[in-house]
Amino acid sequence: MRNEAAYIYQRLASRIESQILDGVYRTGDKLPSIRTLCSSESVSHASVMHALELLEMKGFVEARPKSGYYVKSISPLSGVSDRPTRRSGFAPLSIDVSDVIESVFQRVNRPDVVNFGFALPHPSLTPYEKLSKAVASASRNDPELFGRYPQCSGIPELKRQLAVRLSLSGCHVDPEELIVTVGATEAMNLALQVVAKPGDTVVVESPCYFGILEMLERLSLRALPIPSSSEHGLNIEMLAQALDVHSVKAVVLTPSFSNPNGSCMRDDRRKSLLQLLDDHGVSLIEDDVYGDLYFGKTRPRPIKAYDQEGTVLYCSSFSKSIAPGMRVGWLAPGGHFEKANKIKRTQTIGTPPIIQYGLAQFLASSSIERHFRSLRKQLKQQVESIHHAVLSAFPEGTSVSKPQGGFVIWIELPETVNALELHRRALANGISVIPGSMFAIGGTQENRIRISCGNPFGQRSRDAIRTLGSLVRELSVEALSAVPLRKRARN
Amino acid sequence: MRNEAAYIYQRLASRIESQILDGVYRTGDKLPSIRTLCSSESVSHASVMHALELLEMKGFVEARPKSGYYVKSISPLSGVSDRPTRRSGFAPLSIDVSDVIESVFQRVNRPDVVNFGFALPHPSLTPYEKLSKAVASASRNDPELFGRYPQCSGIPELKRQLAVRLSLSGCHVDPEELIVTVGATEAMNLALQVVAKPGDTVVVESPCYFGILEMLERLSLRALPIPSSSEHGLNIEMLAQALDVHSVKAVVLTPSFSNPNGSCMRDDRRKSLLQLLDDHGVSLIEDDVYGDLYFGKTRPRPIKAYDQEGTVLYCSSFSKSIAPGMRVGWLAPGGHFEKANKIKRTQTIGTPPIIQYGLAQFLASSSIERHFRSLRKQLKQQVESIHHAVLSAFPEGTSVSKPQGGFVIWIELPETVNALELHRRALANGISVIPGSMFAIGGTQENRIRISCGNPFGQRSRDAIRTLGSLVRELSVEALSAVPLRKRARN
Repeated sequence: MRNEAAYIYQRLASRIESQILDGVYRTGDKLPSIRTLCSSESVSHASVMHALELLEMKGFVEARPKSGYYVKSISPLSGVSDRPTRRSGFAPLSIDVSDVIESVFQRVNRPDVVNFGFALPHPSLTPYEKLSKAVASASRNDPELFGRYPQCSGIPELKRQLAVRLSLSGCHVDPEELIVTVGATEAMNLALQVVAKPGDTVVVESPCYFGILEMLERLSLRALPIPSSSEHGLNIEMLAQALDVHSVKAVVLTPSFSNPNGSCMRDDRRKSLLQLLDDHGVSLIEDDVYGDLYFGKTRPRPIKAYDQEGTVLYCSSFSKSIAPGMRVGWLAPGGHFEKANKIKRTQTIGTPPIIQYGLAQFLASSSIERHFRSLRKQLKQQVESIHHAVLSAFPEGTSVSKPQGGFVIWIELPETVNALELHRRALANGISVIPGSMFAIGGTQENRIRISCGNPFGQRSRDAIRTLGSLVRELSVEALSAVPLRKRARN
Repeated sequence: MRNEAAYIYQRLASRIESQILDGVYRTGDKLPSIRTLCSSESVSHASVMHALELLEMKGFVEARPKSGYYVKSISPLSGVSDRPTRRSGFAPLSIDVSDVIESVFQRVNRPDVVNFGFALPHPSLTPYEKLSKAVASASRNDPELFGRYPQCSGIPELKRQLAVRLSLSGCHVDPEELIVTVGATEAMNLALQVVAKPGDTVVVESPCYFGILEMLERLSLRALPIPSSSEHGLNIEMLAQALDVHSVKAVVLTPSFSNPNGSCMRDDRRKSLLQLLDDHGVSLIEDDVYGDLYFGKTRPRPIKAYDQEGTVLYCSSFSKSIAPGMRVGWLAPGGHFEKANKIKRTQTIGTPPIIQYGLAQFLASSSIERHFRSLRKQLKQQVESIHHAVLSAFPEGTSVSKPQGGFVIWIELPETVNALELHRRALANGISVIPGSMFAIGGTQENRIRISCGNPFGQRSRDAIRTLGSLVRELSVEALSAVPLRKRARN
């Protein structure tokens, strides 16, 4: 344990655990509300949440939508260090998030809607005209590229440029160790297939980008969620406890400006995490798509930069930082090049070479640093504007993340507000936001929303944030008047 | 049973099966050689092979490299109709072909080598200059395509053109039911994941394109090989027997100019197959990448054209018929659009839109039919030239396929010749051919090779075929003199 805060949540979790084991709370009982626990224990909201999440991870309690935490019926474990059988209530969760995602996305991209939903910089922030010239020129200069199968791992010109960019971030990788992919999505797919087979377990951040959850679902992998906070990122102490109990193949992590909570891990925590994973022989799949979008003075150093053992499979793309329509990503698969390349060959054979060639030209040009500087400045302004607007428009009891990079804001609403309902009412008012449940496994994050700051901020956005604030108040009031009714029904 | 030939191999298989069950042949015994069985039973080589393959499929015998067929030690089944438990010796095979493929391909693309290995039309046969102009113009005309995520299933312009081409082949598919993919490889990946999950069994042709075997291996699927002949394609009668015994999710099939044996199924057999699969509720994954490369008057009609029930997941691409460097394929997933599209979204999100746009322009142009006509004419000449050259250069006992489309020739060498050894010696002589074992599961196809006729035929090719013929003779003679030695060692 590194700090006092860790002790507090652990102590609280341990006390509730004892009460469950002693029969103070019995199967099906509702635990006291978070607010009650905060005041009865004189601890912070975050500590109570961590304690409950730990209890949930250990299989003692479960969260129920719009209601609270309940004691589970399955036989709980007596403690993390007891190394129980793997099929217990502590077992990782199978995933079924696609249906939620589908239903949300069908409505999220309507042109008549103020779009805080789709997490992408506005097309006006992408250098598409330069890219189009580069691809057109590549196409004219080397038409034979169309007549051959591409080299599976990518064209040498692009791999060299990628190695240059990686070295600017502190990672020194041989171009020959890179695999060019169809976006970071394919890179993550390859990485997961390299280190895990169907039925295996991988750790994900909670909250976690829903695309990763969908991917795990499709690959028949089991996800073990470990809490991550906007401030510190993944909870390494809880990860350490989980690794003592579970057989885990990999940790999937976005250490820099994670989507959705925007967290950026400190350097010392990155090193500790890598050490922990090395000790346990667990791979790290590092997703660094937001790394170039830092607001501070220096780019955060990828965990890959500290990797001596080939533990880290590094995935990235330019979809968020240059242009999503290129569909080019890459993978530095650590000690697994042969296996990853073989999978790439049986998955898409190769990434269209003409696009690779055009991108390589753009990366080699003098425009590239100017583009990144201007994009970072613009995103920083947009994020700050929305952050301020939310602070002034949303009711008390709202917490708003203040990310130091990327372009998403993670908002924790008052405890009683259900974000899925907020999403529905917002859409009826022509505003799209993503409800927290899309980033969760098993009924957490119910009172969170993600707001994308990819679009330029103006009066329309300001008005939309005000409307959102009113809707939150409205839901909050409704919940307050509804609680006594429910309580009456129970008693 | 449709014909006399089926009865012959069945009768022979049944007789040997009785002999095994009666203890005439015991575990570990070698069966009489194929040649001996041909003469002792007065049946054709093909009938003996089919009988042995049936016995192998039923778990009674196994093929051992360079040796022959042996009675297996596992408890065999008493008959196909007995519906044994699934874990018996009749069970489908797990696959591990990637290692063979890797080791062959590392050496096959050397520029100093006469390349009969790589199955692709020569770049000079691809309209790469027209494509490069189309992509360059698309890139200039609609640069904003770079700034957005593409529609996951593909751009409407391309889907419309694909629907037009499909309707020319007799398939009437709504453009909205198509999914544009990164080559047929991604299309097959999607189709397999739609209908099967890890551990499930799918039927493949034997011999089968090794890319499919690798894909099954990666997706943790089990392959059940059913014999296919150059003349008739997949043996539907044996498939019917297998479907009575096995729980099969899908049949993966290239009905038109299959790779490697070049077979093209007759229309009546296509209909029978579809009926059989409809009756069993088994999906068909139809790979039609060679369909446009017919040498006759009309294009073979895809099985998809007869599909009323959404049984067929139709996969294709232009990698073989226009240009592999485009990396564009497509899938018509029958009744599974939503599921397939969702998988596409979590696999590569979308195919680069600028390439789709360029291809759509090319397909809409007047050049397209001219291109196909000229390509077909050229490939037909090349295939016929190599066919003649092989007939005159190879020794007696060689059978050569005479495909009516595509550009690969499948050669059955004299029984004693090991194709992997031929491959090695050919490479030492600067000639690359692909040994049959790469298209097989479990030690069949040992005396076959595939020769690609993608390159223009000239004196260098003619000389190379002559050299191959000499090597086959050499191996044949060596084998004859080696047999008595081995026999002595056994007795």
